[in-house]
Amino acid sequence: MFSAEVQIRVRYAETDQMGMVYYGNYSTYYEVARVEALRAAGFRYKELEEEGIIMPVLENHSKFIQPASYDELLTVRVIIKKLPGVKTTFNYEFINESGDMIHEGETMLAFLDASTRRPCRPPKHLLTILKPYFNEGKAD
Amino acid sequence: MFSAEVQIRVRYAETDQMGMVYYGNYSTYYEVARVEALRAAGFRYKELEEEGIIMPVLENHSKFIQPASYDELLTVRVIIKKLPGVKTTFNYEFINESGDMIHEGETMLAFLDASTRRPCRPPKHLLTILKPYFNEGKAD
Amino acid sequence: MFSAEVQIRVRYAETDQMGMVYYGNYSTYYEVARVEALRAAGFRYKELEEEGIIMPVLENHSKFIQPASYDELLTVRVIIKKLPGVKTTFNYEFINESGDMIHEGETMLAFLDASTRRPCRPPKHLLTILKPYFNEGKAD
Amino acid sequence: MFSAEVQIRVRYAETDQMGMVYYGNYSTYYEVARVEALRAAGFRYKELEEEGIIMPVLENHSKFIQPASYDELLTVRVIIKKLPGVKTTFNYEFINESGDMIHEGETMLAFLDASTRRPCRPPKHLLTILKPYFNEGKAD
Repeated sequence: MFSAEVQIRVRYAETDQMGMVYYGNYSTYYEVARVEALRAAGFRYKELEEEGIIMPVLENHSKFIQPASYDELLTVRVIIKKLPGVKTTFNYEFINESGDMIHEGETMLAFLDASTRRPCRPPKHLLTILKPYFNEGKAD
Repeated sequence: MFSAEVQIRVRYAETDQMGMVYYGNYSTYYEVARVEALRAAGFRYKELEEEGIIMPVLENHSKFIQPASYDELLTVRVIIKKLPGVKTTFNYEFINESGDMIHEGETMLAFLDASTRRPCRPPKHLLTILKPYFNEGKAD
Repeated sequence: MFSAEVQIRVRYAETDQMGMVYYGNYSTYYEVARVEALRAAGFRYKELEEEGIIMPVLENHSKFIQPASYDELLTVRVIIKKLPGVKTTFNYEFINESGDMIHEGETMLAFLDASTRRPCRPPKHLLTILKPYFNEGKAD
Repeated sequence: MFSAEVQIRVRYAETDQMGMVYYGNYSTYYEVARVEALRAAGFRYKELEEEGIIMPVLENHSKFIQPASYDELLTVRVIIKKLPGVKTTFNYEFINESGDMIHEGETMLAFLDASTRRPCRPPKHLLTILKPYFNEGKAD
């Protein structure tokens, strides 16, 4: 299992007149969180696109437990439970400044060849980085 | 069952560098679609808030089948399968200009008293409007 | 002078916790307004990009006179004062449901060749549509 | 003069199909930059609102010199040239990873009493923090 924590500060632009984060903005937080989690592990999403691969989202699931408010520093735990294949799933757990788990998310993404828009394998570089997290019971 | 169709034109701001609608923007489309569907039926969400009720989203599920592109006029079918109680679920089906179903969404929302933030009943006015759609097999 | 009116309904996503439209969202309204104003005149911005021309914004000026609130139907008057050259300027006047002018905007855009990113002439089709509005004092 | 530097990473959500940051998103960057610049100086905008003061934007001016691209780490220099009165002006200079100045912005904001929506003085705490930057020619 791969797991990493990313911090995101709530922007004013992301609130709505209910006085909390607009529900549609969590998907952007997922994007930031998975990109930063992979960067911390040594992988840059931008380079993936430069190599001609894109990662569109196939499914998005969100569960809103408690609202997040303006200027809160949210901790997002990004989890990959299974080594990526043609598809890969990211889970997100949001913890607020009081330590409460306020939100859960899950996105399934595909690897696509940008020119043909057909499914492809994840780049080797990414698998090399992620494999050690999934070699359960084995020395690395 | 309640069902209504709403049209939404894709804005440039809503695209991303993949050349399609950014996945996080569909939740905004859901918001616009459910508000406009209810307006067409005679209910204005704005008045709900003026009466001291808010409707935060509890769950959001999205399935991305095909991308939507800039300037496309999307038809969103908004469906309520069950008469709203303390919670209510909306389903969304997106049809593009070629007639393809490109996206499916589902949101579950709660009715909350804005001052106490505690669950409450839907306003009578809304139920009066929606009931006829669910009186199956009965005259109204 | 070219002038056209476009209506835009304020979305919940566009409000912030001040209970009004977030200031950064007016630029999106400008985009929608200029695109719809040109569509009404017979020109589709999407086709411009398909012909290999893009129109990035060079300058943006906004004056916030009164706030706009959720669900308001804003009328945006789009004005082009001078026939487009390599650059073109759009002015926007926002009128709320009470008839008050609540916001003024101005954007200057360039025509660029999408492949070279160098300035280019506006497409003939657009000039053909716009010229009659600027042939002052002459029969058309 | 008050001046501080803030770093902002471009999100995928903020790009558009031109492959660069959508022009309307710079206003959100201004917001983040001024809030973080003041936080670094010891002032938290969130507390201002908690004390019953809001700061709506009255004017916004943007000059787009070069595009910013996905994943770029932008440095935003936030400048206050004059000690805030009932109104205050922030200037922003955006520097990209190559060291080029790619964007200039200016926003004028008002201090308003949140309940009456009438202009008010800046809070003493903020002036205490900012005054040393403007005591030109005097010991502090």
